[in-house]
Amino acid sequence: MNECIFCKIIKGEIPSYAIYENDKVYAFLDIACDAVGHTLVVPKKHCTNVLDCDKEYLDAVIEAVQLISRHYVEDCGFEGVNVLNASGSCAEQSVFHLHFHIVPRKAGDGLHMWPLQGTQEQNLAEICKKLAL
Amino acid sequence: MNECIFCKIIKGEIPSYAIYENDKVYAFLDIACDAVGHTLVVPKKHCTNVLDCDKEYLDAVIEAVQLISRHYVEDCGFEGVNVLNASGSCAEQSVFHLHFHIVPRKAGDGLHMWPLQGTQEQNLAEICKKLAL
Repeated sequence: MNECIFCKIIKGEIPSYAIYENDKVYAFLDIACDAVGHTLVVPKKHCTNVLDCDKEYLDAVIEAVQLISRHYVEDCGFEGVNVLNASGSCAEQSVFHLHFHIVPRKAGDGLHMWPLQGTQEQNLAEICKKLAL
Repeated sequence: MNECIFCKIIKGEIPSYAIYENDKVYAFLDIACDAVGHTLVVPKKHCTNVLDCDKEYLDAVIEAVQLISRHYVEDCGFEGVNVLNASGSCAEQSVFHLHFHIVPRKAGDGLHMWPLQGTQEQNLAEICKKLAL
């Protein structure tokens, strides 16, 4: 994956603002910023998105999301976080290396980081029959 | 946590449309629906959100998110997913039992499920000094 921008960031070929790192995960500030502390958490082993990530790297990524989120709330004056992922171009994924966004939040921060409205009426019984595992 | 609505759903005291279940995780259709197949994935052991979830349950939840997302893409005609979490009332969390939303996506589905714009200018070097672990 020579052309992957996040692989280049992980290798240090492109500079980034490091927030956290371990053997499986790298976390850095998103330069396309939506809020103070907007952070990306990525696996060091390339994968496209949630759909094709190895289990051990997926676990490592979500554990790093938790570690960083706790740090932001316990040590940095934030009160919560939004955790967001887009998997697939149809889902508005723009860089095709798995990344979870952490958007640190505070009461009254004026951000609008939550897209869900919960207003679509659907036949849930029918949908459930089609989709259940 | 007698009053927790998701604990009641897990116990079957409130009916739900089950999508998937294992010993640690329950997944069901969100009745406050944003899209066909809008799904919630929750740990069977109560915790508030990403900040206080036990590691083994957090791993189990994200692995279930992956399993269900793959099923939606490989078997159900979807092409991708958005995975979303709100942790904290300031982050627009509304039910205080950890849940990840899966919103299945297709090209041209007309949904607007991605709140990030990446348009805020920030002094990233300074923010990084304050926030890095």
